[in-house]
Amino acid sequence: MPERKEFRDLAPPEEAHDAIASLDLTPGAEMVPLAEARGRVLADRLDADLDVPGFDRASVDGYAVQAADTFGADEADPARLELIGEVHAGEVPEVTVGPGECAEISTGAVVPDGADAVVMVERTDRASGSDGVLVRTSVAPSDRIMFAGADVAAGERALGPGTRITAREIGLLSALGVDEVPVRGRPTVGIVSTGDELVRPGDSLESEAGQIYDVNSYTVAAGVAEAGGDPELYPHAGDDREEMERVLREAADECDLVLSSGSTSASAVDVIYRVIEERGELLLHGVAVKPGKPMLIGTLDDSAYIGLPGYPVSALTIFRTFVAPAIRRAAGEPEPAGATVAGEMAVEERYAEGRLRYMPAGLVTDRDGDTLVYPVDKGSGATTSLVEADGVVAVDPDTEYLSEGETVDVRLFSPEVRPPSLFGVGEDDPALARLLDRVDRPRYLGQGSRPGLRRVRDGVADVAVTSGPQTDRVDTEELGAWRREWGLVVPEGNPSDVAGLDSLVDDDLAFVNRTTDSGLRTSLSNALAALADERGVDRHDLVDAVDGFDRAVRAHESPARRVLAGKADAGLGLRATAEKLGLGFVPVGTETVRVLAVPERVDKPGVQRLREAVAESGDILDALPGYARSDKG
Amino acid sequence: MPERKEFRDLAPPEEAHDAIASLDLTPGAEMVPLAEARGRVLADRLDADLDVPGFDRASVDGYAVQAADTFGADEADPARLELIGEVHAGEVPEVTVGPGECAEISTGAVVPDGADAVVMVERTDRASGSDGVLVRTSVAPSDRIMFAGADVAAGERALGPGTRITAREIGLLSALGVDEVPVRGRPTVGIVSTGDELVRPGDSLESEAGQIYDVNSYTVAAGVAEAGGDPELYPHAGDDREEMERVLREAADECDLVLSSGSTSASAVDVIYRVIEERGELLLHGVAVKPGKPMLIGTLDDSAYIGLPGYPVSALTIFRTFVAPAIRRAAGEPEPAGATVAGEMAVEERYAEGRLRYMPAGLVTDRDGDTLVYPVDKGSGATTSLVEADGVVAVDPDTEYLSEGETVDVRLFSPEVRPPSLFGVGEDDPALARLLDRVDRPRYLGQGSRPGLRRVRDGVADVAVTSGPQTDRVDTEELGAWRREWGLVVPEGNPSDVAGLDSLVDDDLAFVNRTTDSGLRTSLSNALAALADERGVDRHDLVDAVDGFDRAVRAHESPARRVLAGKADAGLGLRATAEKLGLGFVPVGTETVRVLAVPERVDKPGVQRLREAVAESGDILDALPGYARSDKG
Repeated sequence: MPERKEFRDLAPPEEAHDAIASLDLTPGAEMVPLAEARGRVLADRLDADLDVPGFDRASVDGYAVQAADTFGADEADPARLELIGEVHAGEVPEVTVGPGECAEISTGAVVPDGADAVVMVERTDRASGSDGVLVRTSVAPSDRIMFAGADVAAGERALGPGTRITAREIGLLSALGVDEVPVRGRPTVGIVSTGDELVRPGDSLESEAGQIYDVNSYTVAAGVAEAGGDPELYPHAGDDREEMERVLREAADECDLVLSSGSTSASAVDVIYRVIEERGELLLHGVAVKPGKPMLIGTLDDSAYIGLPGYPVSALTIFRTFVAPAIRRAAGEPEPAGATVAGEMAVEERYAEGRLRYMPAGLVTDRDGDTLVYPVDKGSGATTSLVEADGVVAVDPDTEYLSEGETVDVRLFSPEVRPPSLFGVGEDDPALARLLDRVDRPRYLGQGSRPGLRRVRDGVADVAVTSGPQTDRVDTEELGAWRREWGLVVPEGNPSDVAGLDSLVDDDLAFVNRTTDSGLRTSLSNALAALADERGVDRHDLVDAVDGFDRAVRAHESPARRVLAGKADAGLGLRATAEKLGLGFVPVGTETVRVLAVPERVDKPGVQRLREAVAESGDILDALPGYARSDKG
Repeated sequence: MPERKEFRDLAPPEEAHDAIASLDLTPGAEMVPLAEARGRVLADRLDADLDVPGFDRASVDGYAVQAADTFGADEADPARLELIGEVHAGEVPEVTVGPGECAEISTGAVVPDGADAVVMVERTDRASGSDGVLVRTSVAPSDRIMFAGADVAAGERALGPGTRITAREIGLLSALGVDEVPVRGRPTVGIVSTGDELVRPGDSLESEAGQIYDVNSYTVAAGVAEAGGDPELYPHAGDDREEMERVLREAADECDLVLSSGSTSASAVDVIYRVIEERGELLLHGVAVKPGKPMLIGTLDDSAYIGLPGYPVSALTIFRTFVAPAIRRAAGEPEPAGATVAGEMAVEERYAEGRLRYMPAGLVTDRDGDTLVYPVDKGSGATTSLVEADGVVAVDPDTEYLSEGETVDVRLFSPEVRPPSLFGVGEDDPALARLLDRVDRPRYLGQGSRPGLRRVRDGVADVAVTSGPQTDRVDTEELGAWRREWGLVVPEGNPSDVAGLDSLVDDDLAFVNRTTDSGLRTSLSNALAALADERGVDRHDLVDAVDGFDRAVRAHESPARRVLAGKADAGLGLRATAEKLGLGFVPVGTETVRVLAVPERVDKPGVQRLREAVAESGDILDALPGYARSDKG
């Protein structure tokens, strides 16, 4: 077994920030076409080098005149001027306006020589059957003329360095005729994925060989782009030392910063250490934060190098906390507004450790629209924590607990993140999945009936969805319900002639159950109890007779998929699942799926919307085999 | 003169919203690669079609064991297991763990058959010189194993339609192996530019022919992209009717929506009317809002058509108010958070008209960081209003005035817009332009010394910058000052042998002055007064003797540029400008440029930063000919 690197001397987080700040990530400025400048940051001051407008310009449709000719004119006593020609926008004037003369002029046209004012057409009349124009108002010199340079004058400061280019800046740049804009370069960030077990999304996966899809490379790449960097994914290097060194050095050669996220293999870490020691400098390894302990900071050839932890939520948290600010600084991007929100802890959270902790947190709004914060920690590196958490709360090393109701600041994973319109926890159900499509921005965790009721009781979730017999007593308001047919999912054609629960108990069938959090499992247990009563035996004996009663999997399709994969003879499941997967189905019973809301949160728009969706769920229930409206409903 | 279209029956704004809502802009869904999915909106629900992880996975480095073998083990009395092999991440296990056996296992590796738990390496020791492993703790079945599907189970709802894809969603999609994502299409918006006078940025401009750069096309295109649409600029159609019809119909054929922004020419409007009447339907023309009266809404062939007003601020205001929400709906984008801010009116604003008015407004923070709002209205379609305004305030038709201190909501032009760190108004000066580069996000309007002092007195600006003798009495705190040499800018080599103010008065020189808001003009007037005293004549006689004393242009380089263009013999200006432009210079005097802050706002970070920048301005003053520190400073 290779020696594993230990991180015994953990650096304080400030040292990690300082070490990263000491790295030079700033690329040179670059020129981009105006049409691609939106969202970029101006590199240099831009002074106007022409006047806008570039000529004395008529502000209205009317007549160019010598103002003195109109003095004293009014409705009753118009001045009569001789019309000597016309000037349209985009034309060189072919006339010169003398005393007693006027020229028709369009908005935007060049005021012709001789004229010093423009009269609006609405205050004039054409003298009938002649070349005369009657001017029924008196105008002063300069009236209705925008002089050359009045908008922007050549030599004026137009935009300063560091300006973020939005629609309005593009307007000013257009007016100045600028078609190429000097902008801050985006730091190029090379992302090196290591680990023999990682496969790129889209490639085929050999689960039996322990392969998993590479999550961090794409997540971190998206984070790099959000921070204003230019992510570059490098080909997967596996754990081959030479190949990994080659890829790391290639990335260092081509990028301002190289990021790798923790390979789980010790050999990958060894290679990175060795390459940095030989080709660069290790500035810091190990930071006293949780997660993030194994962070590495250093240089590699002429590039900066940062190693992120391996679990997705940890990698994204450390990236956003330590690396994204450095990328933004290098790109000239401001810290995003609204990247932090305050909220009250929905539940108490206790800590044992004396390290700065970044607690992944979810947001939910209460009935008043105020933000509540709850900890999200599935541990064990679940990727779903990524979408269940909205951000992180930094908890001081000396904080022993966060009390319920305490106000905390949540740093959002993305500035766009907002609390979901609805937060539900409960049964995993295909009708519910479709109903949720009709709610704008819901969050739903299919953790089972019991966790759903528990989260509702804790004041965290708005809605619990239960199935089967409801045992926990929690004060809720039912938004609606439907029924679903359940039973045993068996291979296509039912080759073992499974005939119901009797077969499960009496035959030699490899069965797959659901986990204890599932309401469906309770329905099965109750049905087995009823069978035991019928047979006059102890229910535990029947349960023991089922080969695989405790072989439990998590989601509603999971047992059926084991059957589909040939790994089981029968699985607990729904008729809808059996038909979807082309499997056989032996019905056992029907159970009710209930959507239950926290009474005080029934008026939340998302909860209301879900209630409406359940009320209008006919099309969805009709399309799912074995589904029906609840009798109660 | 062609008949001009009048908009006498103006529709209420709600009808314009309804008419636009009736247009179908929604494009079909499209597939994009995962790496390009960031920022897009998911079109369909995405259910997991594989388990994550796809196998029972070790959560730690250690040994795969049968838990029963460890029961009762502790530090004092370890269980001794036989090591039969090892399993690394990404490998198919080659061992089966039997009773009394264990296999070395890496984090992320497949738990081998037979094993039902993993012991952390930290709780074990290798028995010296043998194949034995001492396990110093008792583990339960399932310990340190993440079971297949525990993170995401096949069949579970992963992401719902309408989800905005950020880094975290990309993480989940990666975990599911998704490399192509079904996203909402971006509505294609064709932008047709009309008007013979418009020239694309980058092309050369004939100012004498009244040409101006096309501002609206690029501004609106940026607005379209900000709203989630895909802008497409069509070639400039000029005012040729056939060509314009061809371009409009081509855009309608290729796009979901065609936008044109008001050509100033009546003939362009005529063509658009005729094409819509022949090839589509005019739903609405003329809306009772200011600006925006001439808005058109209709259909053209199978596409939607909207005509925007011509002035840039009006076009962007109407675009953001009426069109952007429709593009966002079509793209599935949420209304951006933080697109509206509340603030107090810094000054009173009165209205005469009975129409809904969108008042362009600027933001400035007071000493407490609270937001103040002030009207920005240069009228006359100035493009600079674009960058001087941060958004618009909707003012009801029956509102006669907004009082100072009244709270109003400002709809920002872009969600990124924030109040500037510093708002200054005053003299246009090249040293100041460079000093402002050292302040983060300043706003500075070079409107002259007098407007600067007025805006400071009104409580709108933080800072005024004055030059020359200061006449207005306003309570300010001087942040710093410098001196600049001024005089007469003449052609290179001074061909008319201009020798100073005497030449200006006595010779036949065409002169260009600055406007009355400029402090430099006051310096000139005072110098002429001194010369009059010296000669014992009336100062007005001397002023009258200058050919062009009232030929006034706005910015510090403007007179010099008239000289450079051969349109004047001498211009009021700075030595620095003459040297920059390669012109001759006849010195007359030096004047002091003062940076004056509102005393209560001296502590604003932007004001502080400017004060520091002035204090450290040595390099800038040294580099500008004729510049020096102020004696006072």
